[in-house]
Amino acid sequence: MRNLIIGQSGGPTSVINGSLYGVVKEAIKSGKFDNILGAIYGINGIIKENFIDFINDNVNLELLKATPAAYLGSVRFKLSDDFSDPSYEKILSIFKKYCITDFYYIGGNDSMDTCLKLDKYFKSINYHVSVIGIPKTIDNDLACTDHSPGYASAAKFIINSIINIYQDINVYEKGRVTIVEIMGRDAGWLTAAVKLAETVNCKADLIYLPETPFDQDKFISDVKRIYARKRKVLVCVSEGIKNKMGDYVLSIRKFNANDKFGHLQLGGVAQVLAELIGTELQLPVRAIELNLLQRCFFGSASQTDLNEAIMCGKYAVRYALQNKSGVMITMNRVKGDNYKIKYSTTKLNDVAGIVRYFPKEWIKDDNQIQNEFINYLRPMIKGNVKINEQNDLPLYIKR
Amino acid sequence: MRNLIIGQSGGPTSVINGSLYGVVKEAIKSGKFDNILGAIYGINGIIKENFIDFINDNVNLELLKATPAAYLGSVRFKLSDDFSDPSYEKILSIFKKYCITDFYYIGGNDSMDTCLKLDKYFKSINYHVSVIGIPKTIDNDLACTDHSPGYASAAKFIINSIINIYQDINVYEKGRVTIVEIMGRDAGWLTAAVKLAETVNCKADLIYLPETPFDQDKFISDVKRIYARKRKVLVCVSEGIKNKMGDYVLSIRKFNANDKFGHLQLGGVAQVLAELIGTELQLPVRAIELNLLQRCFFGSASQTDLNEAIMCGKYAVRYALQNKSGVMITMNRVKGDNYKIKYSTTKLNDVAGIVRYFPKEWIKDDNQIQNEFINYLRPMIKGNVKINEQNDLPLYIKR
Repeated sequence: MRNLIIGQSGGPTSVINGSLYGVVKEAIKSGKFDNILGAIYGINGIIKENFIDFINDNVNLELLKATPAAYLGSVRFKLSDDFSDPSYEKILSIFKKYCITDFYYIGGNDSMDTCLKLDKYFKSINYHVSVIGIPKTIDNDLACTDHSPGYASAAKFIINSIINIYQDINVYEKGRVTIVEIMGRDAGWLTAAVKLAETVNCKADLIYLPETPFDQDKFISDVKRIYARKRKVLVCVSEGIKNKMGDYVLSIRKFNANDKFGHLQLGGVAQVLAELIGTELQLPVRAIELNLLQRCFFGSASQTDLNEAIMCGKYAVRYALQNKSGVMITMNRVKGDNYKIKYSTTKLNDVAGIVRYFPKEWIKDDNQIQNEFINYLRPMIKGNVKINEQNDLPLYIKR
Repeated sequence: MRNLIIGQSGGPTSVINGSLYGVVKEAIKSGKFDNILGAIYGINGIIKENFIDFINDNVNLELLKATPAAYLGSVRFKLSDDFSDPSYEKILSIFKKYCITDFYYIGGNDSMDTCLKLDKYFKSINYHVSVIGIPKTIDNDLACTDHSPGYASAAKFIINSIINIYQDINVYEKGRVTIVEIMGRDAGWLTAAVKLAETVNCKADLIYLPETPFDQDKFISDVKRIYARKRKVLVCVSEGIKNKMGDYVLSIRKFNANDKFGHLQLGGVAQVLAELIGTELQLPVRAIELNLLQRCFFGSASQTDLNEAIMCGKYAVRYALQNKSGVMITMNRVKGDNYKIKYSTTKLNDVAGIVRYFPKEWIKDDNQIQNEFINYLRPMIKGNVKINEQNDLPLYIKR
């Protein structure tokens, strides 16, 4: 008898439900599972015994697969390093109560940290559960995998946005400095994606990733020079850029700077830079934040990304049935002319809490992103996802 | 011998090139025109004799039709009320030089004002030119027409965005107050479109249009009440909301408040409201500005909107060939069960500089948008435009 709990954690993506779909489909297909439970709001759902029963609750799996954001709900929850913390015993008691043999968690590096701790805890008390991490992040910053599901769809929305913005800002003879802010706290993968717009003749003038220290004086002089020539400048900037001292360039928004009601929220760096250009150069300027839509605009999702998310879910079941535990599913590019992915595993220890930065060799010569990156990303954005529609609008599953 | 000049003016839209396509196709088909010239950057292109020759320059019309933003470039130009202003004589001399018999201008109410003045001027000197206005505005605020090309595609992007944001913000058990800012300086048509998300079960909690005075105290108490119940609130607000005194609620952005380098720019009202909620209620809050993408994100364009934009262009030629001048093309709904549009004309005098507001009878009972509006907008967003792709990305025409 095997009973499975699957959870979703961290920020949602366009294809995280694809991995959930993959897990459920493969678990059913295997015929090995008596119960397939979805934990509502991640670890919190386990602690509160708040579950969906995928075998009996009649979930529309085809609609689930084509729905962005986390169907099960998500949580940002950090398990203590200390196994004597009561959360561990609580989780254990619930796993025992439901006879849980398999725990899979779809998430980023914080979620892999949760998986790692649970795996270590269960091993320390000789309680057998297959703990499998399923990669998910729009940031593409998980280690030991060629890329992560969620990234390519977010990247595709960003590229699409830049291509459309490019058309718009070239309409006026005397234009503006347009500064587009893109997600990515520590790693520049999402902002770098803008490079692909060049393949359809839409070139951003300046691109800034967090991996390279931001030089304010150089920025101002570059904008001045380009504006003098073109009378418009398109700047793409990662929310997480830092100056030479390692400090974030962003403005801390007033309503989030107060400890009482929330964490420091990134965002706003485009406005900081816009004010700088307005003040220093007296040029007309506009700040655009692509915002939440980057991680949820399903109309720009990549079919390849969705397929891979599904496969990661399926492989979680397959590797668990081979008695793997304490691992995360990884994707590796098979060498050859055609794009092909091999699904393997890596130890959670090697990914938990680790950030994979944008490679230094792909950003050289004064912030120029190299063509190797185009070859890397291009196959990952292939294909458009068919969206279920009602009244000509997207129809998504609701819990 | 007939020679035509066509121009685009005001803010770009997703389908303004559809009208340009319609004009060029119909003019060629009619066989009546020796030259079809496109004025680069609107009226400025005429004054500077900066033209595209649609008969000889080999423009890819099929690609043009499926490209957002103004292919010919645009301009914000106000003609003097005084016909002795040298611009008039300059334009006349160029019209004489090129033997121009037809002038069509695609734009909103400011552009119709330009058309009206030119028509009056030419009539005052007995110089015969057919001056025809072709409606275009994402704001849907042109008078004497059921709606205007450009509105439905912008509305469809906004509805799509809200549907996707709705999925995202419901992921966490304890969520935030999310405030989405939508374009619309004076008229609430675009913000009202959010109502249609309800037809796929995504309901915004609070919607604010500029037509109803904004009551700050009521806003705060409504947010407080809804958050207490749901632990998340979705607010959709027009950039142009005003308080009871008639003053804009928006913050004037620092870098645009300086007379030296630009006009007052709307935008930022979501942040003003977010700071208010943060300060008054100490709730976690997020401001989202949908921004430029509203008028240019072609991935959400409506096929019906594009078809109608093309037809407006075609009818401009047809009515000019019937010797009409000093008119704008209008669209009227034919009564009956099926959605059908009749294309007529109205005098420019009746539309120039006039704003058509969102109807009072469609927003009642404390800012509730009525279902009549759903019936109005629904047929206009029908169908998705097929986008030309290269490398799985949109391929647009460049000038």
